[in-house]
Amino acid sequence: MRDKMRLLTPGPTPLPEEVRLTLALDMVHHRKPGFTAVLREVQVGLQEIFGHAGPVLILTASGTGAMWGAVSNLFKPRERVLVIEAGKFGERWGKMAGTHGLDCTILGVPMGKAVTAELVTKALDANPDISGVFVQASETSTGVLHPIRQIAEVTRRRNVMLVVDGISAVGISPCPMDEWGIDCLLTGSQKGLMLPPGLSFVALSPRAWERAEQAAPRNFYFDLLGERKKTLAGQTLFTPGINLIQGLHTSLDLFRQAGLETVYRRQWALTCMCRAGIAAMGLAPLAERDYTWGLTSVLMPAGVDGGAVLKAAAERYGVVMAGGQDQLKGRIVRIGHMGYVDFGDLAVGLHALARSLHLAGGYTASRDYLEQALAAYEQALVEGHPAL
Amino acid sequence: MRDKMRLLTPGPTPLPEEVRLTLALDMVHHRKPGFTAVLREVQVGLQEIFGHAGPVLILTASGTGAMWGAVSNLFKPRERVLVIEAGKFGERWGKMAGTHGLDCTILGVPMGKAVTAELVTKALDANPDISGVFVQASETSTGVLHPIRQIAEVTRRRNVMLVVDGISAVGISPCPMDEWGIDCLLTGSQKGLMLPPGLSFVALSPRAWERAEQAAPRNFYFDLLGERKKTLAGQTLFTPGINLIQGLHTSLDLFRQAGLETVYRRQWALTCMCRAGIAAMGLAPLAERDYTWGLTSVLMPAGVDGGAVLKAAAERYGVVMAGGQDQLKGRIVRIGHMGYVDFGDLAVGLHALARSLHLAGGYTASRDYLEQALAAYEQALVEGHPAL
Repeated sequence: MRDKMRLLTPGPTPLPEEVRLTLALDMVHHRKPGFTAVLREVQVGLQEIFGHAGPVLILTASGTGAMWGAVSNLFKPRERVLVIEAGKFGERWGKMAGTHGLDCTILGVPMGKAVTAELVTKALDANPDISGVFVQASETSTGVLHPIRQIAEVTRRRNVMLVVDGISAVGISPCPMDEWGIDCLLTGSQKGLMLPPGLSFVALSPRAWERAEQAAPRNFYFDLLGERKKTLAGQTLFTPGINLIQGLHTSLDLFRQAGLETVYRRQWALTCMCRAGIAAMGLAPLAERDYTWGLTSVLMPAGVDGGAVLKAAAERYGVVMAGGQDQLKGRIVRIGHMGYVDFGDLAVGLHALARSLHLAGGYTASRDYLEQALAAYEQALVEGHPAL
Repeated sequence: MRDKMRLLTPGPTPLPEEVRLTLALDMVHHRKPGFTAVLREVQVGLQEIFGHAGPVLILTASGTGAMWGAVSNLFKPRERVLVIEAGKFGERWGKMAGTHGLDCTILGVPMGKAVTAELVTKALDANPDISGVFVQASETSTGVLHPIRQIAEVTRRRNVMLVVDGISAVGISPCPMDEWGIDCLLTGSQKGLMLPPGLSFVALSPRAWERAEQAAPRNFYFDLLGERKKTLAGQTLFTPGINLIQGLHTSLDLFRQAGLETVYRRQWALTCMCRAGIAAMGLAPLAERDYTWGLTSVLMPAGVDGGAVLKAAAERYGVVMAGGQDQLKGRIVRIGHMGYVDFGDLAVGLHALARSLHLAGGYTASRDYLEQALAAYEQALVEGHPAL
């Protein structure tokens, strides 16, 4: 008939059929008891994934909305904050902080590298007036995983808020907010949670709520204190994305059935599979050491344009991957393997990458990259990750 | 088998099957040519419904987000604005203006009445420093239709921005932005556009864009200038609500097939049907003279609790209607007849209202209220409304 379209971008991700069918249900009213029951049930699932005992707020907005909600609710203009900038989304924290009138100290990290807790400590020591640290758990533009647990050990001992954009981490790799001591954790719907974009989620630590109470934000739509009050009452402050929340209900049910550890284990195994595959092809990842579990950024060999590879993969093989953004444009291909992606999808993706690389003038080192990739998957599934 | 659930609330509204099936499609990526084509096509449909030659911005947020975007992008703190307050959503303009630090002059209108252009003129004459007027086209909390065309005749001759919340008007009754001289028109997805909530839409007049350029807003997520640039390039500033936009594509196609005038004509006929039905029952509408075409607010007779009527209608007849908000709680029942609602749904709604009224201790004047209602529908469909 025709080749299937396979979406292997780092968000949005493919959707499970159960979620898609839920999204197609006719409307219900959001101020009636049935929807309150849904809101209460999704709280349970969200709290488990966030590793958080308090309410996880649901905002009808994409992930950037939750980021802006965090910046504008937790800080007053002219406060000094530290921004970890290791890619496009780190830069976004910086721009946002600037829009809110914060004084930013930028801790720049080379693309493909993670920040270290030592560098954060040094920056905080050098600027004792810093009241918050903004960082990504997973920097989606490079595929780097920052050491949130270690950074939190630094910030939790000081009066410094740790604000973590978990957009391509939450539901993909462990990021237990309360256990690690994160002050603000947020994510979007279109990554690990296997939903279309349009919802975002944010949770605050007790000391972050204290800050929000003092900051008296001038943000009418992203009013975290107002949303907390409504969340505790099984409501939302404004008309919410009703069918996305019903889809979330279904998606969280799939999480519950699988178990969170199994979800993480599979995500880790897909990551190992992808990295083994590209290594067998003779390609290198942008993130060598500290890499996220939901995507792999592949460096293009000299003379090969990433754009041409993406085009061939999409047009000839129906595999949609993402390119590099800004200064990484053309230099990397980002393979998403988060959400509702399995080993079969990723195998097709690796095949499309190898063939498209060839068509764009590149070279594949090994003939059995698929077998090596699949073997790595099997092995990782059995062995797991030390953090699990 | 069982009674069907019929949603007759003034938002969300029932969804056409075509829209629901579109919502269930698997994800596509929002930065690829296929989605750009969708964004360009929905612009055409949105511009027709808005009666606007410029871009109509799509925000991933509920309607309140677009309201907040308008307030925070068009005005600087400490400017004076006039707020028409004739219900809960007029009050929301006032609260929002306060959050943004604007000086508000409130023009209060009794619940159920519309403001007049004369009252607006008087208020503007008395406060020559007013730089903007905030109003609802349709005040969803009462069912009142404000005379936007006449108000625009006043504001367009002065250097005063007219900002119109069209949330339960756009796509329901005519509100041609450019022809009338509205400076900012906005709406949400879950009313006339027959989508779930989660998107909102906003368009600005040329002089409003000039203002936005000068206001230098400190709103990162609702950045209208940034969104305009992206809209013109077939993009969105941040990851958009992809499946809702695809649903919009389908919904606008239904609008195109029917023709905008036919949509308005049917909305008008449903309004006449509802009003004839409740009149035959011996009930009175809250809005006697200036009423919106998408909902009818029905005053409960003395001694009858609107909450009990709503409960009986939902539990015994599967008809979900809305109650009054705040000071109108218990005193009115709001019947939504906007979006994908037809004469059959509304007939069931009127029956449920009559029976539930009886169960709650009320009285129905006429035995043939359904026939009277349906006759009024047929007649209005033929005769149309003078404005059409």
